Amino acid sequence: MGKQPKTAITPTRAEDYPQWYQQVIKSADLAEVSPVRGCMVIKPWGWSIWENMQGVLDRMFKDTGHVNAYFPLFIPMSFLEKEAEHVEGFAKECAVVTHHRLEPGPDGGLVPAGPLEEPLIVRPTSETIIGSMYAKWVQSYRDLPIKINQWANVVRWEMRTRMFLRTTEFLWQEGHTCHATEEEALEETRLMLDVYADFAENTMAMPVIKGEKTADERFPGAVSTLTIEAMMQDRKALQAGTSHFLGQNFSRAQDITYQDQAGELQHAWTTSWGVSTRLVGALIMTHSDDDGLVIPPKLAPSHVVILPIYKNDEQRSVVLEYCDQLQKQLKEQTYEGEPIRVIMDDRDIRGGEKKWYHIKRGVPIRVEVGPRDIENGNVFMSRRDTGESNGVSRDEFVTQVGTILTEIQSSLFDQALKLREDNSRTIDTLDEFREYFTPEDKDALEIHGGFASSHFCEDAPEVQKVLGELKVTTRCIPLDQEQEPGTCIFSGKPSTGRAVFGKSY
Amino acid sequence: MGKQPKTAITPTRAEDYPQWYQQVIKSADLAEVSPVRGCMVIKPWGWSIWENMQGVLDRMFKDTGHVNAYFPLFIPMSFLEKEAEHVEGFAKECAVVTHHRLEPGPDGGLVPAGPLEEPLIVRPTSETIIGSMYAKWVQSYRDLPIKINQWANVVRWEMRTRMFLRTTEFLWQEGHTCHATEEEALEETRLMLDVYADFAENTMAMPVIKGEKTADERFPGAVSTLTIEAMMQDRKALQAGTSHFLGQNFSRAQDITYQDQAGELQHAWTTSWGVSTRLVGALIMTHSDDDGLVIPPKLAPSHVVILPIYKNDEQRSVVLEYCDQLQKQLKEQTYEGEPIRVIMDDRDIRGGEKKWYHIKRGVPIRVEVGPRDIENGNVFMSRRDTGESNGVSRDEFVTQVGTILTEIQSSLFDQALKLREDNSRTIDTLDEFREYFTPEDKDALEIHGGFASSHFCEDAPEVQKVLGELKVTTRCIPLDQEQEPGTCIFSGKPSTGRAVFGKSY
Repeated sequence: MGKQPKTAITPTRAEDYPQWYQQVIKSADLAEVSPVRGCMVIKPWGWSIWENMQGVLDRMFKDTGHVNAYFPLFIPMSFLEKEAEHVEGFAKECAVVTHHRLEPGPDGGLVPAGPLEEPLIVRPTSETIIGSMYAKWVQSYRDLPIKINQWANVVRWEMRTRMFLRTTEFLWQEGHTCHATEEEALEETRLMLDVYADFAENTMAMPVIKGEKTADERFPGAVSTLTIEAMMQDRKALQAGTSHFLGQNFSRAQDITYQDQAGELQHAWTTSWGVSTRLVGALIMTHSDDDGLVIPPKLAPSHVVILPIYKNDEQRSVVLEYCDQLQKQLKEQTYEGEPIRVIMDDRDIRGGEKKWYHIKRGVPIRVEVGPRDIENGNVFMSRRDTGESNGVSRDEFVTQVGTILTEIQSSLFDQALKLREDNSRTIDTLDEFREYFTPEDKDALEIHGGFASSHFCEDAPEVQKVLGELKVTTRCIPLDQEQEPGTCIFSGKPSTGRAVFGKSY
Repeated sequence: MGKQPKTAITPTRAEDYPQWYQQVIKSADLAEVSPVRGCMVIKPWGWSIWENMQGVLDRMFKDTGHVNAYFPLFIPMSFLEKEAEHVEGFAKECAVVTHHRLEPGPDGGLVPAGPLEEPLIVRPTSETIIGSMYAKWVQSYRDLPIKINQWANVVRWEMRTRMFLRTTEFLWQEGHTCHATEEEALEETRLMLDVYADFAENTMAMPVIKGEKTADERFPGAVSTLTIEAMMQDRKALQAGTSHFLGQNFSRAQDITYQDQAGELQHAWTTSWGVSTRLVGALIMTHSDDDGLVIPPKLAPSHVVILPIYKNDEQRSVVLEYCDQLQKQLKEQTYEGEPIRVIMDDRDIRGGEKKWYHIKRGVPIRVEVGPRDIENGNVFMSRRDTGESNGVSRDEFVTQVGTILTEIQSSLFDQALKLREDNSRTIDTLDEFREYFTPEDKDALEIHGGFASSHFCEDAPEVQKVLGELKVTTRCIPLDQEQEPGTCIFSGKPSTGRAVFGKSY
């Protein structure tokens, strides 16, 4: 019997995927639970990844003609009530501010005082508060379109939380746009879905399926919700970003009207779209392995870490000087048009411990430099994604580092795409569908099945029944599918197309 | 009698300074009141200024060894209670979350439901929640220092609000650091004050006095509070940033302890420091004039606006092409190491209206280009700060644009410094002090007096009495003053130095 290779993360993905996820976060020092129920603390390494995501997305939003602004954290309760489906969707899970000060209570401790006339809701999303401003700002067709994005925190009182994926408070961006015509609003909804898909695939190295949500998965108050869906390594689906076409629902509820060129009063057409810190969770679950976090270079806070190795003070000064120079040289190289981000770790701790520290934190390239490497004009380079290590000449490494990062980025995408392709199946019978999503061994439930592409009809009651039994959900109706006639595998009725089904987060 | 020159802003600064301030904000489209009491909407142009401030500050924080992270929006009520002065300072003005959902009430509307076991406070500042994490993270001297910054929104329930200067919700950064020694924490407190002063003077072009707050103006729970104080154009002082040495007050209240090198358990030493969107208000009140906003180039969302001028379609195509090329040329020039930010305004509105639009928004340089300018190879350039306009050759303008921006930046600083110097006085008698701060004409109250530098003794009851009568406050005890013997002008007792006094925001 061969010995199991030792991994830095216990348990491994195969042993216990949810627990593995928590351990990757812990060992990469990304985040931690806080003393506030359901809220997390995002630690510096985790925050830098989100900061990098923000930087890329913000540029993409600006390049597509959007500007940033900021609206209040609080929403008057009456605003939420204006759109019936909207309030239905959020009333059950919101933080309610009812008082505006604390006073000494009868037993010496503090008690809430200064009751508010109208309770305020901590924003779960900002359609209503932003819409109330748009109603003021929009008078004429000349005031349109309005294309605003906001980076903000939002609160949804979640009962079951999981770090990054579902927390009571989370950080996100929410775009809110307002247009004169239905066509333009639909175009915007689709454009922002494309921006999200581009970001997911080209920056996060995470392949996604673009599609439309079915009615029961729609954003509360939307006419249609577009989504990007990614497959995690346990074969579950994760909704990574959504773009909503709100039609005139919110503009009617909030009286966002404009005079058109003919002088007629019209209701505007609105959209909203968002991605959140959940993407950090998606990143972790897409690329990380049994040794911890793996970060695609485009989002890595550090691209390269230099690890000086020495045994005594004499070696120390020679090695550190060499490493200093190497660091300078590397910083003069570029990746994606920006200087390579290099750190040197000269902390006085054991070499093995130091190496594993950076493996677990997912730095794409590690470079070890000892006295012998210096003699030979070499460095010892390791890639985090493949684990490959080899000695290369320093000059070669310096000139090649940008290319290696490009390779890592694309190899991570390919690997994730292969996983999805290997675990997606076109299924045309209910028996096969059931079998696909039913584990032989109940304990292996987490990793059974993947994505099934099957004909269905949205309104058939049979669909929800079977899905409920199997704990499977409709992920989306892919946008780019060929129209083919078919039969709903659940009801036997004619179908209008296939949907992608999967277990999900 | 000469005709009054017409100004874009009514009233002027001299006529009604507070109203002028509101009108500058309105006419530059920086912000607007929201339907939520005391909360404002920061509009795109105002947000870009804050975004630019964030960019510069964030780099300065990172360059001084800080990292960003994110902590929860909510603070359990019991956390606030741990530090007695701290809770005293914030209990009277905080938003209290008491419920976590809404339910249909008896009259059909919604009512708060799901009462929380312990109320949550929307953070007014985060010493206690961050401290509770530091208490976990710090075990040994090896874990120190911790130097974390957070960009966040905070809420203080203000009864009298003024846009940017004092709002219920505002945006800020809060640095929280934790050190092994008192000396190191004091050094950090001072370092961050220097960073703020550097930012105020070199980026905002706003001269500041660095000093220490007196006991009654200290941050609740701090051992000492350092401040930067700026003079606005109505001669009032504005506290623009503070850096607090918290001693061991919070580490004792929250049990932040570490084992030192000798194995002894010690309480850590902490600091906190912050600046907020209030700086946007400071910027407005420092530089703007009776024609509206003036933005120092380093923070301007656009450095240059190009205004094409034409009378017919034929001219239009020639002028627009010329302007396009000019825009490209300008974007290849740099200011402060980055490409010049240029916009072209080719909206189909009246030339005068368009020009005043950009004057009121404070774009540092306007360039008008008409058919005659093109014939002569010229552009017609205007500086927002001085109002100077002149035709210059296009080539000269393109090569000089960076230099002109540098001139504008330093000229704005000089002007603000001159205002402060002209309105600061060393005062050594109580009579002169009273006279300085007492307007002859009660209606002119807003602009009477400036900064007075006078000897005082902090504990004398006479001081607060006189200051209260005059509506003057101790701004700070300047850090860089020469030690000289003196007599408190209020009590006649020996003084330890001078303080700066002024009316304030």
